[in-house]
Amino acid sequence: MLISELSDRSGLTVQTIKFYIREGLLPRGEAAGATRARYDRRHLERLRLIRALRELGDLPVAAIQKIIAAVDDEGAGLPELFGATQHALGPHVEPPDDPHWRAAREDVDALVRELGWRASERAPARDLLAQAFVALRRLGFPITLRDLRPYVRAAADVAEHEIGRVADGEPRDRTVHTLLVSTVLYEQVLTALHRLAQEDAAARRFAP
Amino acid sequence: MLISELSDRSGLTVQTIKFYIREGLLPRGEAAGATRARYDRRHLERLRLIRALRELGDLPVAAIQKIIAAVDDEGAGLPELFGATQHALGPHVEPPDDPHWRAAREDVDALVRELGWRASERAPARDLLAQAFVALRRLGFPITLRDLRPYVRAAADVAEHEIGRVADGEPRDRTVHTLLVSTVLYEQVLTALHRLAQEDAAARRFAP
Repeated sequence: MLISELSDRSGLTVQTIKFYIREGLLPRGEAAGATRARYDRRHLERLRLIRALRELGDLPVAAIQKIIAAVDDEGAGLPELFGATQHALGPHVEPPDDPHWRAAREDVDALVRELGWRASERAPARDLLAQAFVALRRLGFPITLRDLRPYVRAAADVAEHEIGRVADGEPRDRTVHTLLVSTVLYEQVLTALHRLAQEDAAARRFAP
Repeated sequence: MLISELSDRSGLTVQTIKFYIREGLLPRGEAAGATRARYDRRHLERLRLIRALRELGDLPVAAIQKIIAAVDDEGAGLPELFGATQHALGPHVEPPDDPHWRAAREDVDALVRELGWRASERAPARDLLAQAFVALRRLGFPITLRDLRPYVRAAADVAEHEIGRVADGEPRDRTVHTLLVSTVLYEQVLTALHRLAQEDAAARRFAP
């Protein structure tokens, strides 16, 4: 397809597509004359991924370049690629240098070990969890494994389902795209449903 | 207790406590001389709630006043009180005037009805869910009940557990506080665990 069709099908302007090519995010098309180039499905797939990274992750071009480089590096396994995407997404908590924070972060690491979860030591979600632990303790809510178990089970069930969305043998762009959507948009789905379910559970318990 | 002890036990300065009294968020203490007043456990409980609303919800004083008024209005049931707190918390999505949004919001309402969940028509979580639906569709991810079911189950299980944290007959301040912590901090716990579980599920599926 020509760049005009690529623009039409990706929902991005020709200008934006040319910008992505200059930034090295999108490979050049195959020359088809002096001023024209042809693009194929892989270009479209790549543009969809870039668009999702921009819109969902609100990521700067530099962060997208890193993810795209990992997508193109066939030597990097999918788990590493997914880890890199999660890392780029953040949120990055600034760990304060205080004993409560260090204790909470150690609890998080112990929990992940105990669960046997394979998650990078540098995963930003570890800090996010430690931050919640610190706040809970400060407000007088002790954290017990018994209290965490329903969350662990819910998270694991949902994640298992999400990995199932990835089809075998699909292109790496598409896989990262699918995982990204799970991380960002289905996280929002989970949060919204959690709040609605809380309202319902409160109504069932406290209303006649 | 005197205001100095109240300050010590609540972790708030005397100045802040006096400000909350002036704003009508905290009842005055019982006069104990010309310039002194005595405070009790209810004051402490109330201050803990105010602090949690400020720190967790990042709420302005006006929003806290509304919640406190609902806490003090014994005629308002706990579900209404919880609904008011959720509404104050937001996030408030600005619904765009477009057919995709309206269709998504109708789908959300149909889903809530189908589940039999008792959630206010004005619950901000409905808009949050509609927003995610619009984004998913725009990125080419159709939404099916089959795909949503694991999230619904996870949300319901976790919410049921959270409502169980509220002890029977505890003061209304305390109940709202507990529900607020579930909404804000345990939501963060769920999000962080979800991301870690995704990384683990990706590693188990894609790594040797």
